[in-house]
Amino acid sequence: MANIAKKVSWSSRAEESGAAGERTLLLNGSEQPRLSRQLSGGGSVFQIGRLSTVDLEEEITSDEDSLRGRPKEIPHNEKLLSLKYESLDYDNIENQLFLEEERRMSYMGFRCLEISRWVVCGLIGFLTGLIACFIDIAVEELAGIKYRVVKQNIEKFTEVGGLSISLILWAVLNASIVMLGAIIVAFFEPIASGSGIPQIKCYLNGVKIPRVVRLKTLVVKVCGVICSVVGGLAVGKEGPMIHSGAVVAAGVSQGRSTSLKRDFKIFEYFRRDTEKRDFVSAGAAAGVSAAFGAPVGGVLFALEEGASFWNQMLTWRIFFASMISTFTLNFFLSIYHKNPGDLSNPGLINFGRFESDSGAYNLYEIPLFIIMGAIGGLLGALFNVLNYWLTIFRIRYVHRPCLQVMEAMLVAAVTATVSFTMIYFSNDCQPLGPEHNEEYPLQLFCADGEYNSMATAFFNTPERSVRSLFHNQPGTYNPLTLGLFTLTYFFLACWTYGLAVSAGVFIPSLLIGAAWGRLFGILLASITSNGSIWADPGKYALIGAAAQLGGIVRMTLSLTVIMVEATGNVTYGLPIMLVLMTAKIVGDYFVEGLYDIHIKLQSVPFLHLEAPATSHWLTAREVMGSPVTCLNRIEKVGTIVDILSNTSTNHNGFPVVVQVTGSDEPAKLCGLILRSQLIVLLKHKVFVELARSRLTQRKLQLKDFRDAYPRFPPIQSIHVSQDERECMMDLTEFMNATPYTVPQETSLPRVFKLFRALGLRHLVVVDDENRVVGLVTRKDLARYHLGKHGLEELQVAQT
Amino acid sequence: MANIAKKVSWSSRAEESGAAGERTLLLNGSEQPRLSRQLSGGGSVFQIGRLSTVDLEEEITSDEDSLRGRPKEIPHNEKLLSLKYESLDYDNIENQLFLEEERRMSYMGFRCLEISRWVVCGLIGFLTGLIACFIDIAVEELAGIKYRVVKQNIEKFTEVGGLSISLILWAVLNASIVMLGAIIVAFFEPIASGSGIPQIKCYLNGVKIPRVVRLKTLVVKVCGVICSVVGGLAVGKEGPMIHSGAVVAAGVSQGRSTSLKRDFKIFEYFRRDTEKRDFVSAGAAAGVSAAFGAPVGGVLFALEEGASFWNQMLTWRIFFASMISTFTLNFFLSIYHKNPGDLSNPGLINFGRFESDSGAYNLYEIPLFIIMGAIGGLLGALFNVLNYWLTIFRIRYVHRPCLQVMEAMLVAAVTATVSFTMIYFSNDCQPLGPEHNEEYPLQLFCADGEYNSMATAFFNTPERSVRSLFHNQPGTYNPLTLGLFTLTYFFLACWTYGLAVSAGVFIPSLLIGAAWGRLFGILLASITSNGSIWADPGKYALIGAAAQLGGIVRMTLSLTVIMVEATGNVTYGLPIMLVLMTAKIVGDYFVEGLYDIHIKLQSVPFLHLEAPATSHWLTAREVMGSPVTCLNRIEKVGTIVDILSNTSTNHNGFPVVVQVTGSDEPAKLCGLILRSQLIVLLKHKVFVELARSRLTQRKLQLKDFRDAYPRFPPIQSIHVSQDERECMMDLTEFMNATPYTVPQETSLPRVFKLFRALGLRHLVVVDDENRVVGLVTRKDLARYHLGKHGLEELQVAQT
Repeated sequence: MANIAKKVSWSSRAEESGAAGERTLLLNGSEQPRLSRQLSGGGSVFQIGRLSTVDLEEEITSDEDSLRGRPKEIPHNEKLLSLKYESLDYDNIENQLFLEEERRMSYMGFRCLEISRWVVCGLIGFLTGLIACFIDIAVEELAGIKYRVVKQNIEKFTEVGGLSISLILWAVLNASIVMLGAIIVAFFEPIASGSGIPQIKCYLNGVKIPRVVRLKTLVVKVCGVICSVVGGLAVGKEGPMIHSGAVVAAGVSQGRSTSLKRDFKIFEYFRRDTEKRDFVSAGAAAGVSAAFGAPVGGVLFALEEGASFWNQMLTWRIFFASMISTFTLNFFLSIYHKNPGDLSNPGLINFGRFESDSGAYNLYEIPLFIIMGAIGGLLGALFNVLNYWLTIFRIRYVHRPCLQVMEAMLVAAVTATVSFTMIYFSNDCQPLGPEHNEEYPLQLFCADGEYNSMATAFFNTPERSVRSLFHNQPGTYNPLTLGLFTLTYFFLACWTYGLAVSAGVFIPSLLIGAAWGRLFGILLASITSNGSIWADPGKYALIGAAAQLGGIVRMTLSLTVIMVEATGNVTYGLPIMLVLMTAKIVGDYFVEGLYDIHIKLQSVPFLHLEAPATSHWLTAREVMGSPVTCLNRIEKVGTIVDILSNTSTNHNGFPVVVQVTGSDEPAKLCGLILRSQLIVLLKHKVFVELARSRLTQRKLQLKDFRDAYPRFPPIQSIHVSQDERECMMDLTEFMNATPYTVPQETSLPRVFKLFRALGLRHLVVVDDENRVVGLVTRKDLARYHLGKHGLEELQVAQT
Repeated sequence: MANIAKKVSWSSRAEESGAAGERTLLLNGSEQPRLSRQLSGGGSVFQIGRLSTVDLEEEITSDEDSLRGRPKEIPHNEKLLSLKYESLDYDNIENQLFLEEERRMSYMGFRCLEISRWVVCGLIGFLTGLIACFIDIAVEELAGIKYRVVKQNIEKFTEVGGLSISLILWAVLNASIVMLGAIIVAFFEPIASGSGIPQIKCYLNGVKIPRVVRLKTLVVKVCGVICSVVGGLAVGKEGPMIHSGAVVAAGVSQGRSTSLKRDFKIFEYFRRDTEKRDFVSAGAAAGVSAAFGAPVGGVLFALEEGASFWNQMLTWRIFFASMISTFTLNFFLSIYHKNPGDLSNPGLINFGRFESDSGAYNLYEIPLFIIMGAIGGLLGALFNVLNYWLTIFRIRYVHRPCLQVMEAMLVAAVTATVSFTMIYFSNDCQPLGPEHNEEYPLQLFCADGEYNSMATAFFNTPERSVRSLFHNQPGTYNPLTLGLFTLTYFFLACWTYGLAVSAGVFIPSLLIGAAWGRLFGILLASITSNGSIWADPGKYALIGAAAQLGGIVRMTLSLTVIMVEATGNVTYGLPIMLVLMTAKIVGDYFVEGLYDIHIKLQSVPFLHLEAPATSHWLTAREVMGSPVTCLNRIEKVGTIVDILSNTSTNHNGFPVVVQVTGSDEPAKLCGLILRSQLIVLLKHKVFVELARSRLTQRKLQLKDFRDAYPRFPPIQSIHVSQDERECMMDLTEFMNATPYTVPQETSLPRVFKLFRALGLRHLVVVDDENRVVGLVTRKDLARYHLGKHGLEELQVAQT
């Protein structure tokens, strides 16, 4: 169990420094499930976590009983909430320094800022487009070389016999390319594995995932995704574009790179969470836009993930970034395809043009589409459940980097073997038409002038296979081929997602769906007497693709728009919508979406948009953490250092209170200060005594805080002498003098609404005398969720 | 001036009951522009409005001086902020009754609620689609009859001479139909005039515009728009659909109609501002969706207007409503067109299909598109400025209903006359092709087998004209025809918008733009040697239409998606985006968008998404209203009645304070109660004494408040006897016990953010002892806006 708790991390190894994870044990299955006692770092001292002191009142004892009454079970990871993740602070810290700066700024200053925001968004779009272009060309070229080599080899051995050599060649080629990709991911930057969409969702939600937006992550991601796609895994290169776009945005908007140790001294104003988040959402949108040629879809994606901070100006900037991104990609690809100026490749995946005439649908087809949506939902749920079990297995047993690399290689070899076997035993020969658009037609055992149809699906990059399924003439595939392909590819894709490689799940989902969708269309045509109405299997392939993807990822609005933009035909808007909604409803009945499953498995304190419906009986008093470590407005340096050094609590925000000297009145809240601010103050030794003695000392400015952002040094790295410990620090100027507060009686939904709508990190709970009684943070709110048995409370763990 | 102040109202007559408007005079141009003294209802007593006591501190005296120093000018209405408008309360009133109800509700109860939300959204979509269908068929049929009659007449008189009789027939027909439409609007429901989009924007922003979502408004709107379109005005029927959808939503979601005095006893849970607003946004989206066949565009429209309350579940419901709406319209229209099941008419306006091959554009065309965007922005700004002057003129001189009807008739007659003259003098004869798609080709003086090209544009419903401009073969229009058409239609449309008829500005804008866009395309083709590249004037017509519409209304994201969905071709997404952004940037340089101008002219306290950039030097202390009328937790009935009856203050929200009896400590804030709640309490005589004496008295429930919503009776209608005045009322159970508060030092942007993000109506300002020091309402925040000279403060007026 400790093992699970330890390794279930997107970025486990960095946090393991000092093997803190190793020492953290969890006492699970205790009789008081609401109290999560932790055996913490220092040794064998039991501590009752700050977060666990839930003071439930009488009215809820019946509920409590039901909680107690439930059978003891070993908690899964998705029943935990990790304390490891910090929150991002999407509320501006309005201290005196900030207000002074804002007040000094003229109207022209704000105009310039606005213009630089646009410039940054333009840059984000441009660079994201360039990266997409680079990935596309690299994959195209490298995959081309690989397929040509294998094809020649197969052709050679088809005649002389001994195709097993071709199989080995193919498998070894794939495995070694994938090994490369897996090594850089597993050893250098584990956070770059997978599609990165769950991580970006968390970032936009306000959770700080370590190292998720760093340059190194981007480099590994880009190289990794090229390797996985060229290595023939059942993956796509689209999902990682979203992560890439986000990293680009986080980098460009800060005007410096900590990894490269370069500071361009520009965009310094944007060095805070609020601004950075806005740019990251623009980057994610630009990524979607480049991946699918869907700028509006990108905007909607950013909206679905970060709806709580939306505003019009931001929408336009995001839109601009998306537009630039798809345009850049389109433009450079048109040059690469030696057709400059022809803007017909707006995205990495191109569904090809669905002509309107063949694509029109009739009213009586809508029930069929809905049935397909339901099938997609079922298959998606199956996919997710299988992947969930696989992920649990991986967390338990496949957590060492070298094991991860080996697993990836195994999957690559198996993928090649299965593909080869399928092609080998397939008898589906199709005539090679005059305008054939197969890039690498494999003749194999087919007659001259024919090619193996199974090879179109397997011996190809997944994007091309999708396009073939959408657009090839009716009769190009026989039903058996499609059925077998669906079956094998389903399990391959399911096995592949979650490997330590950079790869997306969009394209494999589309491919599975397109295959069974086309099968569905063919079967329809064959069982009805008048085959001509259902004549177009490509249409059903598209609907199937939408259904399968919707069933797996459970996006609706943005996915509809993405699909519509990628097909280039709005006629399909309505059926795609219907299908995606059906798939979501059916799928949600069984299990959550794939990304949400992975987020939960990481125990991320993810805040949904609303508090659980039945949580009105909880109030701030019950959910808040208490007692709260408060600081005085003028506080002793030693006290501050001690508080910050306390690893067992590790608080990040401290209410500042003012005590009337010589009176026994209780202290009133007067502000809020963050750990990061205190660290900067300590580092610059902003002590009252020193200020007096050294009159020439430079006044601390907002710039000093920005320079330290976002990697504030740990308290251990700051040396405070014994003399200095006796000094005093005046926090007045640096604290946020007007933190948001709520009274103790505020209901949880109300607290939740305030917290989520304003993107808070700390919310102070006060009594009616304005005295601090508690502090609500993300974990306090994320703990409550609606399970099958009503409101459930997750356990909080230090892992 | 008093005249202006009085009549500048979307719904002036209702507020005039008792001629209160008449008695309200404004002392403008006073030396203290920040203090708006009002000569109030009662007689000649001067009162300084609560809102006007702005306590500016020293640091801003320079700014104050600059305000003082500016030349005295007669204030326009857009420099005023009306106190007439109430706010909507988008924050749930969490009093004990509410919490008890929520706590009683089981998880299944919440599920049922969620399902009924979906049902309501489905109904909204369905009904909106039906209304759109009804409008479309009615316009089609009636306009058909009109055009056939006139056409026969013209044909008759073309041969025998005396076409002036045809002109008179046409003009009289138009004028009488428009008269009908204008009469119902001007005499029965003035709020139904125009497109209704500004009103819906305000509603979603949180301003209560009286009677905007009533059944009567809907009926008048629907009939009015049919009359205006059939009457041949330069208007469209699309804008009003948005308003219609909103009304449908507000009606359906409440499960009753106050106008019809029917209460279906369903959806009672939704009888509060928060829930109603969500449905209204779904209705607006359904309206857009039905109008343009653009479900995604509809969702984005609702997003652009109401971004601050967005969440995913709501997005999906809105999406669902939009989808159902366009589908319903499509389905019924397909039956009407005797082609059931063929879903090719998703919206009221159908741009026709832009085939991808002819429509592809090249990189070097993008600068041309941007130039067109700039032209659109310029022409749009011109349109808006002209319309602004016209509106000012109308406010001053054309405010009596009969005058308004006469003006509408005049415009109708002039439109017919101008159209006829243009057609008459046009020599642009075009051959009537075999597959001609002119509905009413006018031969006039053309040779047999030819038709008058000018008549295609003028002698047609505007929707058809747009489609012809987009799709007719190159060479169908000669440049002179287009130029003249643009010119005349521009002024006609500008004159028409703001008349007392129900009508939208979308279609006329598109038509103007399509005309000059096509002209632009033709000129391009003629000045380049190789005409073939620019061969498709329809493409330029589309871009021109987007540019012109963008220049007038200044929407970007939603408009792009609407245009893309209406053309059915995503290829044009990028150029349309670029064009709309250019048009917005260029247009904004000169003047605001048309809807914003009209909102400002109504002096509506409209809250933008962010506080003005340079407002950090203002704090809650300066913007709040003070002193605040507070109530005690247990208050004398007489005091409450007196406070509510005070027409000079007319407050709607009252902080509730608790005074420790027998102590001189100041009172602490313990809640907030609304006028509407107090009214209900008074009506039900919830007095402490009565409760004691009549033990059997039913306890007041949330249902009683819901039954009274939203038309709470005025205080004057409630009779309180002298004995009852001495009773006490216990507010504990009914007040919102946890109102949001801010300290006095909070900066304006921070107050603004809290207020806007949570959709508040009253925000209590407290000192550090939790004592009430002020109250911030919508007007306090909306007062500050960024003008040409930096931060400006609007005057607050009682009108």
